[in-house]
Amino acid sequence: MYEGAVQDLIDELGRLPGVGPKGAQRIAFHLLQADPQDVERLSDVLLAVKEKVRYCERCFNVAESQLCRVCADQRRDQSAICVVEEPKDVVAIERTREFRGTYHVLGGAISPIDGIGPGDLRFTELMTRLASGEVTEVIIATDPNLEGEATAAYLSRFLKGMDLKVTRLASGLPVGGDLEYADEVTLGRAFEGRTLVHV
Amino acid sequence: MYEGAVQDLIDELGRLPGVGPKGAQRIAFHLLQADPQDVERLSDVLLAVKEKVRYCERCFNVAESQLCRVCADQRRDQSAICVVEEPKDVVAIERTREFRGTYHVLGGAISPIDGIGPGDLRFTELMTRLASGEVTEVIIATDPNLEGEATAAYLSRFLKGMDLKVTRLASGLPVGGDLEYADEVTLGRAFEGRTLVHV
Repeated sequence: MYEGAVQDLIDELGRLPGVGPKGAQRIAFHLLQADPQDVERLSDVLLAVKEKVRYCERCFNVAESQLCRVCADQRRDQSAICVVEEPKDVVAIERTREFRGTYHVLGGAISPIDGIGPGDLRFTELMTRLASGEVTEVIIATDPNLEGEATAAYLSRFLKGMDLKVTRLASGLPVGGDLEYADEVTLGRAFEGRTLVHV
Repeated sequence: MYEGAVQDLIDELGRLPGVGPKGAQRIAFHLLQADPQDVERLSDVLLAVKEKVRYCERCFNVAESQLCRVCADQRRDQSAICVVEEPKDVVAIERTREFRGTYHVLGGAISPIDGIGPGDLRFTELMTRLASGEVTEVIIATDPNLEGEATAAYLSRFLKGMDLKVTRLASGLPVGGDLEYADEVTLGRAFEGRTLVHV
């Protein structure tokens, strides 16, 4: 509907996840009115991200050199590996400042409906890391949904018989939430995993 | 939270209208996994839009030459001007195929709260176009909200006394909607503007 360049931009923006036709139009007109330098900067960072960013050779987190920031940090505890689905999960856990070990990013979760099997995820690479014998604990931190649970189940079978402490992040009530608004599965899990206060 | 280039991209994307921090992260990871050519194309159209796109010298719609597609089209009726707020309104009206005249894009609406007065909009340029004497009808098609109504009121005062037919787009019930879901103002307008079926 628009002339050449504007329509091209709207089309390209509309291909991004979470950006609908209205959103693409809104962003395009925002950029039309923006400072040329701002638009150039956006264009530059787009190219930079493809040039510079690769995956950490050890844990497959996003990185700008061979190792990601966590793996390159000598102070991190190499004996604990937290297994997550995506690099954004690493960021979420780092934000808590609870964990001082390293990560392993699987690159997704097992999902037969999307045709993603264990072979599409980085289990072999995890096995190689565990073979070094340095690791004593594996923390399974896949998403608490169907695919994440399937991946966690596969992983725990995969790790069985190895001389490792294997843990899974606790399920329960979200802090700051209302008990009455919790769904039954979450509330059920919170009961199941109830902790002892005193006897 | 992320390393260099990824965080830069998330920051830049987060500045776009309608893109929150989560959305920016989602788009960034989508682009990380996308084909390098796709990302290059997005980067190219961003630069192209700033290079190529300017505003029509006559109506201030977006254009790629001196005149926009509508103004350059000899078959359009030069005696009717439809006054809109933004270029996207031109596209919306063009889609209806109801109007064969030309447009005038004000570049916004009067909004004292945002510090936008009549002097910030293209009223003088409209006056110049009307001075040619060729125009016989002005259709006010500003948005049916507070700012749009204020702009329409200003415009109709501004045009008073000129030898022109001045009209405003009808307010009423949206087609395909349910009467019971219409807000009171819309329903009130629909009553006010009721049309005669037969006597």
